[in-house]
Amino acid sequence: MKKTVGIIGGMGPLASCDLLRTIICHTKANQDQDHIHIIMDCNPEIPDRSAAIAGNGPDPVPKLIESGRRLEEAGADILVMHCNTVHYFYEPVAEALEKPLLHMPRELAKAMAARGIKKAGILATDGTKNTGIYDSVLTEENMEIIYPTPENQKFLMETIYEVKGGKPCRDIERIRVILKELRDAGAESIIIGCTEVPLILRALPEYADIEEFTFETGFADSTIVIADIIIKKAGYLLK
Amino acid sequence: MKKTVGIIGGMGPLASCDLLRTIICHTKANQDQDHIHIIMDCNPEIPDRSAAIAGNGPDPVPKLIESGRRLEEAGADILVMHCNTVHYFYEPVAEALEKPLLHMPRELAKAMAARGIKKAGILATDGTKNTGIYDSVLTEENMEIIYPTPENQKFLMETIYEVKGGKPCRDIERIRVILKELRDAGAESIIIGCTEVPLILRALPEYADIEEFTFETGFADSTIVIADIIIKKAGYLLK
Repeated sequence: MKKTVGIIGGMGPLASCDLLRTIICHTKANQDQDHIHIIMDCNPEIPDRSAAIAGNGPDPVPKLIESGRRLEEAGADILVMHCNTVHYFYEPVAEALEKPLLHMPRELAKAMAARGIKKAGILATDGTKNTGIYDSVLTEENMEIIYPTPENQKFLMETIYEVKGGKPCRDIERIRVILKELRDAGAESIIIGCTEVPLILRALPEYADIEEFTFETGFADSTIVIADIIIKKAGYLLK
Repeated sequence: MKKTVGIIGGMGPLASCDLLRTIICHTKANQDQDHIHIIMDCNPEIPDRSAAIAGNGPDPVPKLIESGRRLEEAGADILVMHCNTVHYFYEPVAEALEKPLLHMPRELAKAMAARGIKKAGILATDGTKNTGIYDSVLTEENMEIIYPTPENQKFLMETIYEVKGGKPCRDIERIRVILKELRDAGAESIIIGCTEVPLILRALPEYADIEEFTFETGFADSTIVIADIIIKKAGYLLK
């Protein structure tokens, strides 16, 4: 039974576009008609998640529910919110919707556990770190999580915002140091917990030509994992 | 007044993804919340347009109308079908919908006329050529259209399908010959009338690094033109 997928997107818009492209490129298909029916609500009206968590902005939950209901009414059978930080608000949104809402960080944690990973590093914003989203889903799967040292986390956060603003990474050697620090601390895989992180990693010559940060590259990218889960749950085959 | 945009997509899915990316990248925005609200129906249930035109497949009109109504009900104020060939079916779809449906080839023709172009070459599939979609919209704007010679059109059609199937262009020199032939015949601009054409052009060293085939590069790409029109009609500013 083929299912229609609804994506609550726009957080940010380019990241939603990347999810859509990843789903399309990973689906086994020979022609347009072999692809998944996807309805995407690229919705900029959803208030800033980090600001809401910090108590500096409106609650995004009502707009998330509105977007989910819009997709349900349009025919979506499975829903997903494409953003790491937004999963801080997962419970009230999932409860208000009729159709199942996938939990991206939890699915990533399960996929990592299935590969026998016990200890993971993470590259994410302060927002994602402070909400502890990944801490809880990794703990559920009996995995340990390692963040960069406070000074390196601060540098990473600054770099993410510089890259968001279109600037190049000003100290790629330090990114290499952070990766080494996480691996030296025992990280078997490093979670890409922010959509800007692949852009930063590709500034390193050893990662410049990596199109997708698959598990085989030593990383765990939530967009790639959720794309493959969406394909399977919708009743399609992976390429 | 900001408007919500509905995209009838999935023809093909990657091309829809490119349109979404182009709209996002061309919109003047500093944060997620500055972007356009876009609802995209990436709908593989829409039957093959070329087959229907050739009398070998089901009529896509009912599914196109269904997709348009789905987007209207979800809140779309402006609609667009992202495919060149599908505009052969524009009239019955536009009539069945309440909200305005943009006409991609017509908008491209208008944008070309506004630039003073009088004679245009075109790189498209046999399907798009045989339906005469571009012939009629260019004639409306008092422009002449030039197709490659029959043998070169045949080679182009084969190349488009090879590239669709993931193969490289087997004779890039011949593509250069086709472009020269069109320009020698007086084409002031060459219409990219198929979403695979940019991939073929980038096999030529002189076009390898062109990210977007803007008017300044000597081409007229319907995806780029419609993206900018969508941004303006939705009440947003171009970057």
